[in-house]
Amino acid sequence: MELMNEQFRLAARPVGLPKDSDWQRTEEPLRAPEDGEIVVQTLMLSLDPAMRGWMNDAPSYIKPVGLGEVMRAGGVGKVIASRSPRFAVGDIVSGAPGVQRYWVGPAGDKYGGWQKIDLRLAPLSAWLNVLGMPGMTAYFGLTEVGQPKAGETVLVSGAAGAVGMTVGQVARQRGCRVVGIAGGPEKCDFVVRELGFDACIDYKAGQLREGLKQHCPNGVDVYFDNVGGDILDTVLTRINMKARIVICGAISQYNTTTGVKGPANYLALLVKRARMEGMVVFDYAERYHEAIATMGAWLQAGQMRSKEDIVDGLDNFPAALNMLFEGKNFGKLCLQVAPL
Amino acid sequence: MELMNEQFRLAARPVGLPKDSDWQRTEEPLRAPEDGEIVVQTLMLSLDPAMRGWMNDAPSYIKPVGLGEVMRAGGVGKVIASRSPRFAVGDIVSGAPGVQRYWVGPAGDKYGGWQKIDLRLAPLSAWLNVLGMPGMTAYFGLTEVGQPKAGETVLVSGAAGAVGMTVGQVARQRGCRVVGIAGGPEKCDFVVRELGFDACIDYKAGQLREGLKQHCPNGVDVYFDNVGGDILDTVLTRINMKARIVICGAISQYNTTTGVKGPANYLALLVKRARMEGMVVFDYAERYHEAIATMGAWLQAGQMRSKEDIVDGLDNFPAALNMLFEGKNFGKLCLQVAPL
Repeated sequence: MELMNEQFRLAARPVGLPKDSDWQRTEEPLRAPEDGEIVVQTLMLSLDPAMRGWMNDAPSYIKPVGLGEVMRAGGVGKVIASRSPRFAVGDIVSGAPGVQRYWVGPAGDKYGGWQKIDLRLAPLSAWLNVLGMPGMTAYFGLTEVGQPKAGETVLVSGAAGAVGMTVGQVARQRGCRVVGIAGGPEKCDFVVRELGFDACIDYKAGQLREGLKQHCPNGVDVYFDNVGGDILDTVLTRINMKARIVICGAISQYNTTTGVKGPANYLALLVKRARMEGMVVFDYAERYHEAIATMGAWLQAGQMRSKEDIVDGLDNFPAALNMLFEGKNFGKLCLQVAPL
Repeated sequence: MELMNEQFRLAARPVGLPKDSDWQRTEEPLRAPEDGEIVVQTLMLSLDPAMRGWMNDAPSYIKPVGLGEVMRAGGVGKVIASRSPRFAVGDIVSGAPGVQRYWVGPAGDKYGGWQKIDLRLAPLSAWLNVLGMPGMTAYFGLTEVGQPKAGETVLVSGAAGAVGMTVGQVARQRGCRVVGIAGGPEKCDFVVRELGFDACIDYKAGQLREGLKQHCPNGVDVYFDNVGGDILDTVLTRINMKARIVICGAISQYNTTTGVKGPANYLALLVKRARMEGMVVFDYAERYHEAIATMGAWLQAGQMRSKEDIVDGLDNFPAALNMLFEGKNFGKLCLQVAPL
């Protein structure tokens, strides 16, 4: 049986927010797997802010998606054909299928390509969230780069987003005071009531400076930054001596058409002998299993939550992706492509 | 005998480059020392970019100079009266006399206040340079924050300035490739020929980007930043994986009237898993003796140079200070107030 594949390919490099015309829908027959290869049916895709960067023709930590190529995306799927000893038909796997219904190619190895996931530990969508790339990013970014100590104040922006929610929950487990920054009262309520943060500041209410004074009365020891821009600049005015700022992303700047806004208050790093350090999750690939074991146990024990915002249907990919940049998603944004 | 003291006091908070009217000349009799106090005659003052920051009414790593107060300045002097067991009349000492002919007050202790200096190790002006605050800043900023390894490329801005020249020379001793950035061919020649840097890029020639490609062909592992602004932004495009950027100062921004320019390319920290970290020399006060011993030996062995640009006369203080911000000094800027 020949399967027809459907894809979203990058048709043009977006200027600012991606438009419909930046995408091309294509349909083509799926080729058969060769020796060592598998065929994966995409079940659910992960939609992440970082995808916007991959669409630019600029050197970065990963190759840009080429014009005409299938858009890169992480996701989970089901093995529907296998010529690899690593997988059997029916296995549920995590990897990077791209924005398409089916993926065919080499099965990869322990630290790259596809990995089996265990749905007894957590449901499918959690494997794109706490137990997926956002969770790994949060876990290693916070613990390895942020290095929070019990009793310190950890501040995280994008607190209701995929990375932010896990950063805060891991920091709580480490005995820190945890304060989030999120947009709107609904997200802030969720962050405090459901995720157990000590406080959450609604930056859309225009009270960030006052909120930081109120909720971080002893200053900020670790700031995990997912947003950049004015929020980063304001936080710099409240950091403590020897503070650590984890640069994980800058969603406020990804669609800029006027140039990235650098942090004008960066000299606070000097005054406070503080540091700002970038991280990329792939560096920790050999240790993902540690984070999965630790956070999987917390999930099962009810000590941690994984909240996803699931949009249905491959057709909705362009609009769903843009929800990220408009702050419209509530929890980790996922795109359901096929039922489990 | 009652001594008349002459001072420069801060009359107004400068906007942009300090003007003559921001200073007030005063003359008053010197009070007698009390128990535990000494009187120091200022011989030579250290003029440093950081002094501009002390003139602003803004929280920083040190209290601003108050309006009407004698301008703060480091310097070396001669003890001319002593009621402290730590010092005898005739001792040559290093401390912070301020911009005035005489200083009277508590003698301090091992880690604060006045310290004896040994003119057999290096001449007076070197004690304001390689063996003074700039040298301590360079030594600990580079070794403790920059952590260069042999074979790495160390880049330093303000390379012909007080901190920069020592940064480069210490990096050479550590077996690094050392590249400077300085303004004008004369300074660049000096940095390469006299200080032994591998190369020096003349930023005033407008070829910084090309110069970095040419002289740092393997990228930049440690960047010691004294200038901020566009130079910092351009260097960020050339950093290596796990690079360390030492934020020591930002002389290009100290007289801004339009707001500090933040580094728009700071997301290079993410791409390169690099860090930017601030430092303040005072944190290393208990270890100054290590740096003095190490660099003093290099000076005596002819393995290191200390170059000063000495302006004569207390009267010339306002104009001399501004030389720093106009890039007019060549070597560590000192103001001779009285002969040794």
